[in-house]
Parts: sequence; structure tokens; C-alpha cells
Amino acid sequence: VSLTAGQYTSGSLILMVSYGAHFAFILFFLAMAWQLAPRYRIVPIMSAVVMASAGLSLMREFSLWQESYELVGTMYRPLAENSSFTNAFRYGNWTITVPILLTQLAIAFGLPRPELQKRAARMIVPAVLMIWTGLYGQFGETGDWSRLNIWGVISTVFFVWLIVEVRGVITRGVQTSPAQLQAWPKNIWWFFLATWGLYPIAYALPQLGFTGDVVVVRQLLFSIADISSKLIYGIILSRYVLRRSALEG
Amino acid sequence: VSLTAGQYTSGSLILMVSYGAHFAFILFFLAMAWQLAPRYRIVPIMSAVVMASAGLSLMREFSLWQESYELVGTMYRPLAENSSFTNAFRYGNWTITVPILLTQLAIAFGLPRPELQKRAARMIVPAVLMIWTGLYGQFGETGDWSRLNIWGVISTVFFVWLIVEVRGVITRGVQTSPAQLQAWPKNIWWFFLATWGLYPIAYALPQLGFTGDVVVVRQLLFSIADISSKLIYGIILSRYVLRRSALEG
Ligand SMILES: CC1=C(/C=C/C(C)=C/C=C/C(C)=C/C=O)C(C)(C)CCC1
Ligand SMILES: CC1=C(/C=C/C(C)=C/C=C/C(C)=C/C=O)C(C)(C)CCC1
Repeated sequence: VSLTAGQYTSGSLILMVSYGAHFAFILFFLAMAWQLAPRYRIVPIMSAVVMASAGLSLMREFSLWQESYELVGTMYRPLAENSSFTNAFRYGNWTITVPILLTQLAIAFGLPRPELQKRAARMIVPAVLMIWTGLYGQFGETGDWSRLNIWGVISTVFFVWLIVEVRGVITRGVQTSPAQLQAWPKNIWWFFLATWGLYPIAYALPQLGFTGDVVVVRQLLFSIADISSKLIYGIILSRYVLRRSALEG
Repeated sequence: VSLTAGQYTSGSLILMVSYGAHFAFILFFLAMAWQLAPRYRIVPIMSAVVMASAGLSLMREFSLWQESYELVGTMYRPLAENSSFTNAFRYGNWTITVPILLTQLAIAFGLPRPELQKRAARMIVPAVLMIWTGLYGQFGETGDWSRLNIWGVISTVFFVWLIVEVRGVITRGVQTSPAQLQAWPKNIWWFFLATWGLYPIAYALPQLGFTGDVVVVRQLLFSIADISSKLIYGIILSRYVLRRSALEG
């Protein structure tokens, strides 16, 4: 679809703010690692890695956005109707970031080594299946709704499985947390559901009609989800381990 | 509008100096964090994050400036009249940097945790509303003065609300500062008013006439405001916490 100048600029803006935020917070997380007991340092470092990886992917989406439209009269017209701009890079990037984010949770809760590996693996398997089935389905976003929906449902089944595994890790987190920090894992749980839940909404959105507004709102939703599920999540986990390392001495 | 070669070069130069300064000071603020008591380290680190994020946004404005004009005869003509170069990226970036700058103030003054969160939230809400209403209004900068003015006024209402909240934090800052540093919060207050006050002036400027000079002066004003409200402000706060951590031992 063609975009108005306002829609085009909003899209660039949203993508630019997202990659800027991700890159800038690399510094925050590296500096944070300094303040922590050695055993927890890896938690903000993982966030720094996620920031770098997601920042690069979002910068790619940004350039793609810039390159995919040309100004004709007062409207920005796609260079190749329906096939130029794609969100597919996001899904590729999730394959890297999502396993890190999930493992980070188990590490922050200080699970002992063999359990950590088992729990991480049991979260990563459904997560990767969720992403890849979703990636396959999202190529239907330009109008093939049955493809979008069938693969969306399959992907959601893996999402539910993932949620069950994450719930298990949260329960262990409550057990391992010092008494003063008991409330944190539960709050992280609600935060996880609210932020990861935005992705399927953004995925399904094109069915509301393939208009310029939908294209832009979708980028907005993805970006809010990205900033909260990676950046703010990272801040929360870093603060949790900061308290925890202070309490544990 | 078309720009003379001098105007075009000045604009590039101003933007280039701004992003260069922001990037370079990342190093300064990271090194500064080293010198401080652990509880204040976060203050210069937040400045480093702001530098990185604003640097990226200004580099984007710089590239956009370069791409938006072509040399025709002796004049730089916009590739698409009135619609190509835009300041909108700045507003997007403020959404990230402004909440950090405000929270940084409350942290530097060493407010205790629950109060810190409450005060930060009460500053961030009007600040974000101010930015977003301003962003919406600035799309009127190419000639829709009523849009520019109405949304400018709405945005100013939020600015006034923000000023009241900041004033509250300054007052607390005077109370929590060691006796030798009592004057600092008040000076920061005046500095805050003077530098943040430049933004609405730059916003309103196009109404003086949409000439090449106005376009360039506007970049100059924005850049002065950026360097003072982020970079110099960061230096001031870092020096304040340096003294404070020396006094507190
Ligand atoms: C349920 C569902 C999905 C869920 C995606 C999620 C939950 C993605 C999370 C991504 C994160 C957290 C990335 C961070 O880097 C898809 C694949 C959109 C397809 C439609 C169904
Ligand atoms: C009052 C007012 C404005 C105020 C903007 C301010 C005060 C921006 C501050 C930005 C900072 C400090 C950025 C640092 O990164 C707008 C939005 C221009 C719109 C017109 C009315």
C-alpha cells in the first residue's frame, strides 16, 4: 500500500527510535555488569548481547523501510507492490534473542547448573518452533489469510507450551529468591505475559485491512513489544540480581 | 525551501558537530563512572546512554539533510518540496532521552527508593505527553500554522506541568544536599529552564517565514539546546555527584 508522508515518517521514526534505544542501552548493561557479584554478571551481559543483535536487526528494518518506498506526488509508493518491505528479519533475529532472553531468566533465578540446562532447553525448543512456524506463516501477510491463520494457530500452540515451561521457571524463582524479593518473580511473570502477548497481536493485524495506518500501527506494536520484552525486561532482571547480590553479600 | 551553498554547508556542519560531540562524550561519562561511589555510578552511565541514543538520532538527521537536497545550479534544492527533510526524528529520540534525563536528576539528588519512583513517574508522564503532542503539531511546520500553534499550546500546558514537578524535585534536592552543595540544585534549576526553554522557540520559528536562514537557525537552536540539556547537563550532574560522593566518603 502507498503511505502518506505522515505515515511514512512515523514508520521511519518508530524504527529509528527502536534501534537507537537498543544500541544505547548496550552501554547501560555493560556498566551494570560491573556492579554485580561475579556469578550474576552474565545477566546484564546477555542483555547487552541482545541489545546489539536486536539493534542491528531493527536498523536493517529501518533501512529497508527507507529503501522500499518512493515519493510519487504526495504519496510514498512501494517500489514493488506488496513485496518489498517485510518483517521477516525480525523473526530471524528472534531465533537468536529469544533463547538468550529465556536462559537469562533461569540464570537470574540462580538455578543450579544441571537444572538450569534442562529448564533452558525445555523453554528453547517450543520457542524456536513457535518462531519458525510463525515466520513461515507471516509470508501470508500480504493477503494469504489462510496461510497466516493456520500457521499462526500452530505457532500459538508452541507459545502455550512455552508459557507452561516459563511458568515452571517462575515457580522455581519464587523458591530460590531471598524472602525480600519473593514478589519479583511473580511480577516478572505478568510482565512476560503482557509483553510477549503483543507479538501475536501484531502478527494478526493485517487482517483488519491492509491500509497505511495498519502498516504503521503494526510497527508501533512490534517496537513497543521489542523495547519492553528486551530492554525493560533486561533492566528489571538486572535490578533483581543487583538486589540479590547485595542481599547475598 | 532551496538553500544557498553557505546555508546548506552550515546545516551539515551544525548537525555534524552535534552528533560528533554526543558520541565523543560517551567515553567521558563512562570514565567518570569509575571515579564515583557505587550508588552514584548510574548517573554518568545514564548520560552515556543518552549520548549514544542522541548521537544516533543526530547522525540520522545529518544523513537526512545530506540526502534531502540536490545541487541545481548554485542552489541546493529539496528533492521533494517541503516534505523530505524533517525534524521528526528528534522528537522520537526525546521519548527515550527525556525520561532518562529526568530520572537522572532524582537519582543524583539521592532520593530514597519509593519516593524516587513516584517522583520520576510524575515527571515522565507530562514530559511524554508534551513530546507527543509536540510531535503531532510539528508536522504542521511546513505551513499549517494553526496545527503548529494549537498543538504547540497543548504541549506547552504539559511543559508547565512538567516544570512544576521538576521544581518539586529541585526543592527535595536542596534538602538532601550536603551543606556545601546547597547552591547546586538551584543553579541546575535555572540551567534547566534556560536550556529546555530553547525547544519551544525552535518549534515556533518557521512562522517567522520559511526561508533558508530560518531553516539553518533552527538547526542551530536545536543543537545548542541538545548540547546543553544533555551533554553539559550531564557534566554538571556528574560533577555534583562526584563532590557528593567525596563528601559522603
Ligand atoms: C504466538 C505467536 C507468535 C509469537 C511470537 C512471540 C511471542 C515472539 C516473541 C519475541 C520476542 C520476545 C523477541 C525478542 O527479541 C508469532 C511468532 C508472532 C506468530 C503468531 C503466533
Ligand atoms: C513546550 C513545547 C515543546 C517542548 C519541548 C521540550 C522542552 C523538549 C526538550 C527536549 C530535551 C531536553 C531533549 C533532550 O534529549 C515542544 C515539544 C517543542 C512543542 C512546543 C511546545
